[in-house]
Amino acid sequence: MPDRPTVNADRLWSTLLRSAEIGPGVAGGLRRLTLSDADRQMRDLFVTWCREAGCTVTVDRLGSLFARRAGTEPDLPPVLIGSHLDTQYAGGRYDGILGVLAGLEVVRRLNELGLQTRRSIEIVNWTNEEGGRFTPPMLASTVFAGVQSVDWALARTDDTGTTVAAELERIGYAGDGAVGGRSIDAYFEFHIEQGPILHAEGIPVGIVTGGYATRGFNLAIEGETAHSGPTPMDRRRNALVAAGMVAVAVNEIGWAYADSDGKSTAARLELWPNKAGILSSHGSMTVDFRHPDPAKTAEMEERFHAALADCAERSRCAIRVAEDWTWGAERFDPDLNALCRSAADDLGVAHRDILSQAGHDAYMMTRVCPTALIFCPCKDGITHNEAEHVEPEWAIPGANVLLNAVLARAGG
Amino acid sequence: MPDRPTVNADRLWSTLLRSAEIGPGVAGGLRRLTLSDADRQMRDLFVTWCREAGCTVTVDRLGSLFARRAGTEPDLPPVLIGSHLDTQYAGGRYDGILGVLAGLEVVRRLNELGLQTRRSIEIVNWTNEEGGRFTPPMLASTVFAGVQSVDWALARTDDTGTTVAAELERIGYAGDGAVGGRSIDAYFEFHIEQGPILHAEGIPVGIVTGGYATRGFNLAIEGETAHSGPTPMDRRRNALVAAGMVAVAVNEIGWAYADSDGKSTAARLELWPNKAGILSSHGSMTVDFRHPDPAKTAEMEERFHAALADCAERSRCAIRVAEDWTWGAERFDPDLNALCRSAADDLGVAHRDILSQAGHDAYMMTRVCPTALIFCPCKDGITHNEAEHVEPEWAIPGANVLLNAVLARAGG
Repeated sequence: MPDRPTVNADRLWSTLLRSAEIGPGVAGGLRRLTLSDADRQMRDLFVTWCREAGCTVTVDRLGSLFARRAGTEPDLPPVLIGSHLDTQYAGGRYDGILGVLAGLEVVRRLNELGLQTRRSIEIVNWTNEEGGRFTPPMLASTVFAGVQSVDWALARTDDTGTTVAAELERIGYAGDGAVGGRSIDAYFEFHIEQGPILHAEGIPVGIVTGGYATRGFNLAIEGETAHSGPTPMDRRRNALVAAGMVAVAVNEIGWAYADSDGKSTAARLELWPNKAGILSSHGSMTVDFRHPDPAKTAEMEERFHAALADCAERSRCAIRVAEDWTWGAERFDPDLNALCRSAADDLGVAHRDILSQAGHDAYMMTRVCPTALIFCPCKDGITHNEAEHVEPEWAIPGANVLLNAVLARAGG
Repeated sequence: MPDRPTVNADRLWSTLLRSAEIGPGVAGGLRRLTLSDADRQMRDLFVTWCREAGCTVTVDRLGSLFARRAGTEPDLPPVLIGSHLDTQYAGGRYDGILGVLAGLEVVRRLNELGLQTRRSIEIVNWTNEEGGRFTPPMLASTVFAGVQSVDWALARTDDTGTTVAAELERIGYAGDGAVGGRSIDAYFEFHIEQGPILHAEGIPVGIVTGGYATRGFNLAIEGETAHSGPTPMDRRRNALVAAGMVAVAVNEIGWAYADSDGKSTAARLELWPNKAGILSSHGSMTVDFRHPDPAKTAEMEERFHAALADCAERSRCAIRVAEDWTWGAERFDPDLNALCRSAADDLGVAHRDILSQAGHDAYMMTRVCPTALIFCPCKDGITHNEAEHVEPEWAIPGANVLLNAVLARAGG
């Protein structure tokens, strides 16, 4: 086995534990919502670390950060290593940030070893991967990939009506860099699996070949306020009842495809005025459907639209798809995947091919350049939960694969 | 027909229109939630008006206001005229305040006519009749009637966790008067019907004989946060799905009793964390059931408990009744009702007996003293909606009945 470089495991882990001090959750995890004060604090620290590692940091108009380690041929399209620093409202310490900090460790280790690369290497933090505060998720990478416009993303609002643009200004990360529109040689993302397979099988590295085809929807429900007492049943237009019907229908569609690993989620429901004594006239709801086979996802969507019509009729409310999004049917680059497998083999690290069930910025990047996504195990697949857990020895093999694959691609 | 005193219709209506300037809603109605700044402003103005009419105003520990016009035998138990100044989140200009201001008009008119009564007359504003901010509704009158304790009421919280006690302090209405515990001769409440019957039949006065037996519940739902993507359907414990199942079941129970005028409402649902990308682990929901026949309400409740067990099993969430309340099975006082009918007959005002479908402080007062509830029409029965509407000529006959019945009872 040739002598392959490896990361400094202790440094990567102590850096990760330091990051977990920012935006602590109530139960040992994190609540570091996009563009919150905690997000700003984490960004500030990340920028400091990158500059200390000799990188030049730029910020694009959506606040995504690019920390560049110049190559010996700086005009060549760079190799990107990225993920996200934001978390869910009740999220874990690993989802996203492990991949960003693994990128930082790659740069630190290359510096230490005095290894130059032909291509520049850039560590990326994508703004609002989680979608926990502003929908849809993967917001900045969606724009980077040319799927939506910068103005569309800047105008997204959270539940209080605050825009992405206003929050970027407030936390000081409204950059002036163009979003996308430049040549990228390759994109690598390292992430926890967010599923139970690698942990159950005791395999430290998953080479992601593709995703679960996912369709997401924001629904707008319109009913009518009325007294919860005297209003006869046949004159009620209660948005909460309509939303309840939709939640039940969405759940049933997921169960109908559960045998082939389909899933559905009624994820979020805001009602107005949502007070005891009065029927709610407005509802805003987020739902999604996922299946490894895109044709089945399409079937689930067809059933969903039929169910919406039925729920609208039974509840006497209007139910409208206000927005929708798609991801996960993308396939990752065979050559980059081969490079990762080869790096794992050279390092003597067990690996397997795997599908991704969660959303990742890597899906969007498949539209821009050859893209690879590398998974490490997380305990029982628990994630988007403060109990999310990864032992260092589960993550370090994947970080080493990342280091070697990036080094090979960037021309070490 | 003897010469009966009548109210000053113009004065009552201009006073009502002045009150409608405080806490304006977005669509011409009102948003004057209990213990809000608007509620304080309305209370301040009401106290000013009462003092100008020669009343002595006292405030009890729950912030309820008692404006007393002393009788010639001030030691006799007083006659109370009451209702509430608070409104729903998107409420109308008449629900509650019409009854309070009609009480004020009674006092003003008696002053003007130089009519003394043996018994004192007190105009009451009950704190938090609506329950739109703090549940349950009829909060202060529930304590006045001895059903719950003062401390229990003071500790009630709104959706932000703020207590009744803190808000009473903040708006300056944390009084020191005892809540209840004194002799009351009779309680009269004048209110809009909040149903379509009087308006449809063109009858200006409804003598309320009883209510719809109502059971209300606050539910606590416990699930588990998890990623909305990879988590298999059979491992999900999504509080939103559980709440959706409950909303559908509650609605179906209402429909099962709709033929005999039963009603059910899924009125309010708060979820946590309620963000896209994560399953919600907590839900808090308010529901109620109403039927003119208390035995049917009990049947509805029985079905409800069976449905809760079923929803809990299907959603894998725990669903618990955190609180419950009852009202509406009370019957109003036959003698006071006879007095009101007789006053209406003497005034030449058409009237009919009617049941109340909404909650009213009068229900609670039936536990304290003989109680009467008088209704006037409202347009199409629309209420708890900013479009709630009453023409002066629909309300004045009832105010005149109130004046004459109170005068007779108080010993004019």
